[in-house]
Amino acid sequence: MEHTWRCAITVADLGEFGIIARIVGRLPQSPTVLLGPGDDAAVLAAPGGRVVVTTDLLLEGRHFRRDWSSAYDIGRKAAAQNLADIAAMGASPTALFVGLGLPGDLPVEWLDGLTDGFRDECAPVGASVAGGDISRSEQVVLGVTALGTLDDRPPVTRAGARPGDVVALTGRVGHAAAGLALLQAGLPEAFPELSGAHRRPMPPYARGPEAAALGATAMADVSDGLVQDVGHIASSSGVLVEMDADAFPVPASLAAAGERLGEDPLEWMLTGGDDHALVAAFPSTAVLPSEWLIVGRVVEGEGVQVRGHAGAQGGWDHFR
Amino acid sequence: MEHTWRCAITVADLGEFGIIARIVGRLPQSPTVLLGPGDDAAVLAAPGGRVVVTTDLLLEGRHFRRDWSSAYDIGRKAAAQNLADIAAMGASPTALFVGLGLPGDLPVEWLDGLTDGFRDECAPVGASVAGGDISRSEQVVLGVTALGTLDDRPPVTRAGARPGDVVALTGRVGHAAAGLALLQAGLPEAFPELSGAHRRPMPPYARGPEAAALGATAMADVSDGLVQDVGHIASSSGVLVEMDADAFPVPASLAAAGERLGEDPLEWMLTGGDDHALVAAFPSTAVLPSEWLIVGRVVEGEGVQVRGHAGAQGGWDHFR
Repeated sequence: MEHTWRCAITVADLGEFGIIARIVGRLPQSPTVLLGPGDDAAVLAAPGGRVVVTTDLLLEGRHFRRDWSSAYDIGRKAAAQNLADIAAMGASPTALFVGLGLPGDLPVEWLDGLTDGFRDECAPVGASVAGGDISRSEQVVLGVTALGTLDDRPPVTRAGARPGDVVALTGRVGHAAAGLALLQAGLPEAFPELSGAHRRPMPPYARGPEAAALGATAMADVSDGLVQDVGHIASSSGVLVEMDADAFPVPASLAAAGERLGEDPLEWMLTGGDDHALVAAFPSTAVLPSEWLIVGRVVEGEGVQVRGHAGAQGGWDHFR
Repeated sequence: MEHTWRCAITVADLGEFGIIARIVGRLPQSPTVLLGPGDDAAVLAAPGGRVVVTTDLLLEGRHFRRDWSSAYDIGRKAAAQNLADIAAMGASPTALFVGLGLPGDLPVEWLDGLTDGFRDECAPVGASVAGGDISRSEQVVLGVTALGTLDDRPPVTRAGARPGDVVALTGRVGHAAAGLALLQAGLPEAFPELSGAHRRPMPPYARGPEAAALGATAMADVSDGLVQDVGHIASSSGVLVEMDADAFPVPASLAAAGERLGEDPLEWMLTGGDDHALVAAFPSTAVLPSEWLIVGRVVEGEGVQVRGHAGAQGGWDHFR
């Protein structure tokens, strides 16, 4: 006679509708959600008669690792990278929709952590997870869609930068890249602030609508690397962006991690993605709050130049 | 000296930004799309100040097979199942967002077919693919989000059916299930209409807003199986739905395929998903166009009963 010992309840034990009930039970809904989870589709308020939408696909092993990040941090990060795209339009996030692919043997506790991570990244910005979909999958798959509202503002695209504008940055750059390098080197505990930055970005959400109000002519979130994302602004706007390596003060933690790993911390700052900073062009007359660091200027021409730094031509391409 | 022969251009040859450019170049945008692909997020018009949203995750091997369906049909089906969820709220679809996970060795022609399938399923309903995301993946992964507009109508949820209402169906049921059974039996050519129904559903999109205008009290799309989806209406509304097996005329193709495979065609019609018919409750006074087939009635109680049929308690659970 064989005894089966179960150490943890799995998502397969719950079944599809049990999983949905469990997730929905942990998710408060924001006032924007007129009809939440449980029907064929959700209904959201769209003030001003427009809605901002972005989507990302996150795959286990490629975008996150369960042995490197907790379920809670994976949820926060998946939410953050989509909410940051909304902020980068000058908009305020309102809701997330999450398609979940889950292995049957996934412990329910892991699913709870993921759900709570989504919930807690959404709550401070006034958003909530308003719907989703569940499938069985070999590995964890997250299809995340974020919606947001511009109220009555025009969107800030990548295409409006003009010669004479200044280029300014808000939020961290290089931290997540350094954290990833430390995790890859097996040294996550050496600089917990940096490995933590890889696991859970802290996008400056409120700075997006602030930039719009300050008259930003173009904006992007830094997800592929600063030089590459500024390059998107440059190509969309038909301009050249000149940045100065001297404009970037290297934080002590990045300098120390760079020394430990034999890497150039400025390279992390200029080419590392995943911190989800915001970079924007402003008229030179704009008076920017201290959270915005001026790192360059817009001139006639095309592309991006970084003076005083030999590298920094790279960035992230998912297929290279 | 080694020679490498390449028979087809792959998505890895194009790279991430080449893939995006190729996809976007094949996608016309509908007037609802105020800002389309190419920025951090898209901006859509949301007439009436509300937006309807649904999302699905589709995984190769679980939701589709590349050896059973063409890329074009996979694109159409992935679009259709999301657009049908919008119609089931009484809304009109406006846009799709597609997160794509693609193997590096995928031929570009396959990607083109997929893109064209999405495009062609969207165009007749006035929607377009307004944004997306690309990642490398071991197998094809599709994270699809659909948006729609109610204009000034209230949404038709699953929760409003009342005793005395009639229950009516529009669109095909059982065809996709029969087609899947034929594919699994290695007989796709025996009934091409049915294997075709599995590959490409034909949801009756326009019937969704029509049902809302006719005063539908509750509605759902049939994706898990008619009995199960009517069960969602019953439980959300707190009522019992009685259906009659006699109400369902069995099409000749289903009868013939059932005989060939030794299956009960009525079982396919009552429990098979993936045709994306619409089922709705209406006041008994509603005058329904001939496309709506009355299949049951709403009474006090709970659950679903099918008179004259012994089976039909099943349906689809992604984790069973």
